[in-house]
Amino acid sequence: MSFEKVAILGIGLIGSSICHAIHKFGGAKAISGHAKSAETRAAALELGLVDSIHEDPAEAVKGADLIILCAPVGACGALAAAIKSNVQPGAIVTDVGSVKGAIVRDVGPHVPPHAFFIPGHPIAGTEQSGPRSGFAELFEGRWCILTPVPNTPPEKVAALEALWTGFGSKVESMTADHHDLVLAMTSHLPHLIAYNSVATAADLEEVTQSEVIKFSAGGFRDLTRIASSDPTMWRDVFLNNKDAVLEMLGRFSEELSVLQRAIRWGDGETLFTLFSRAREIRRGIIAAGQDTAAPNFGRDPAKRS
Amino acid sequence: MSFEKVAILGIGLIGSSICHAIHKFGGAKAISGHAKSAETRAAALELGLVDSIHEDPAEAVKGADLIILCAPVGACGALAAAIKSNVQPGAIVTDVGSVKGAIVRDVGPHVPPHAFFIPGHPIAGTEQSGPRSGFAELFEGRWCILTPVPNTPPEKVAALEALWTGFGSKVESMTADHHDLVLAMTSHLPHLIAYNSVATAADLEEVTQSEVIKFSAGGFRDLTRIASSDPTMWRDVFLNNKDAVLEMLGRFSEELSVLQRAIRWGDGETLFTLFSRAREIRRGIIAAGQDTAAPNFGRDPAKRS
Repeated sequence: MSFEKVAILGIGLIGSSICHAIHKFGGAKAISGHAKSAETRAAALELGLVDSIHEDPAEAVKGADLIILCAPVGACGALAAAIKSNVQPGAIVTDVGSVKGAIVRDVGPHVPPHAFFIPGHPIAGTEQSGPRSGFAELFEGRWCILTPVPNTPPEKVAALEALWTGFGSKVESMTADHHDLVLAMTSHLPHLIAYNSVATAADLEEVTQSEVIKFSAGGFRDLTRIASSDPTMWRDVFLNNKDAVLEMLGRFSEELSVLQRAIRWGDGETLFTLFSRAREIRRGIIAAGQDTAAPNFGRDPAKRS
Repeated sequence: MSFEKVAILGIGLIGSSICHAIHKFGGAKAISGHAKSAETRAAALELGLVDSIHEDPAEAVKGADLIILCAPVGACGALAAAIKSNVQPGAIVTDVGSVKGAIVRDVGPHVPPHAFFIPGHPIAGTEQSGPRSGFAELFEGRWCILTPVPNTPPEKVAALEALWTGFGSKVESMTADHHDLVLAMTSHLPHLIAYNSVATAADLEEVTQSEVIKFSAGGFRDLTRIASSDPTMWRDVFLNNKDAVLEMLGRFSEELSVLQRAIRWGDGETLFTLFSRAREIRRGIIAAGQDTAAPNFGRDPAKRS
């Protein structure tokens, strides 16, 4: 099962990784690309990511039976509007955005009735961005969530699913609202507090920035990795998943007040109980193949055997 | 420059790593160990970590010219009291605790006037614990902070410094108070919010724990690694660095309110500006050799070259 021509609109980390994955694992006979910036278009050709590259997204989607919007969430509505007259009958329109409700709201109205709209989100990425950051194995072992709109023919969902499973992903379908709630917890909140920690550190006057950098191996460095992700993408996530993020943030702040009070009162039992629980979730994540069991993610010098 | 006999009191991640490091890089002719639990004492012998192992810490320090307390911060005072009559003249007493003010307060009074007290803290670790988790290279490229008390002879500080630099560490001296403030930001606060995030996730009713685990690759999994560190050690850190942690937590919460309001008001400019700043600190950490530049800490399948 393979698509004839896939159009990748936006050649950043995810868009370029999809190109690499198709070259390595198959899934489409041809790839056309679109990128706003001339520099990215040149890189896409130089790296051999695409068969053709277009400044005009409407050109890129001509003859495509699969169209994947790989732009920041806030840019997808305009992109969908720009391509709508060239979307061919029977084509699947999907995306890779970290928010799904806003994609349904912004992209949905522009998908012609003769095409099939299946929003998607591969839970994969790195802190890097741009057309040179992609690699074929990015999706291996990761989940891809699809949020098909009601009445989407199952064979269309299956065709898109086959592409992702071909890349080594596992696929699950759910509603857009549920996706946005789950991801607010597992991705958006972690990024928010990582960005916030780095901002807190940057504003300290007693502790110089050079000390924060030198002594970061005690935990802070891990947060800076997450916080170095693409600012445009993340701005759009928070603007477009406001309700779920504010809900999770409210819960996070409530919990934090409990912890803060335990510290202030010297309540070691509460701290110990709460800290002990966290190990179970970590074990679950490793057992589910979603992280490495190697200490420090394996980034240290080799452990002596 | 080498110590005749070093006593390691507490054989967890740090204590066992010091043993491995001495075997690999030198620094002492003999190692005596103490551990409270019979299981740990057996493991220390089985792994060949020490030349002798003692249930009674006072036995372990006999004839030692270097004594390193490697117990959780809250246990160090009692340990120092237990050994004090056997500390030999001229011996250096140090520790590896993540808090230094409380160590000065709790251990200081028990160090006999004929010995030299130089509190220390290697900024190194993994999320694992126990005598089997140590390895010789743990301290390579990491900083070790010393907080010598006033009037400590420079040659004593130099002797301890030489041990750490022999392990591949860089050494810096500062006051105990300044240490506690710096580490509250670079280590204690990150752990606190990681623990808090995991607790928030564990308490959600709409999102099942299995979903949190499945879809953790979007950022959450990184926090669970930090949050799976030893609960006893971290309880003691928060109980013993209360003021600095509460100060940093207050600043973190203020910043978070600003971010929260920006999300609520849809203020994309504030979000973008704040998110963009974080990349600089990350670059500084990588340039300083305190983290890997590999995407996702290099834990993904190999990136195609």
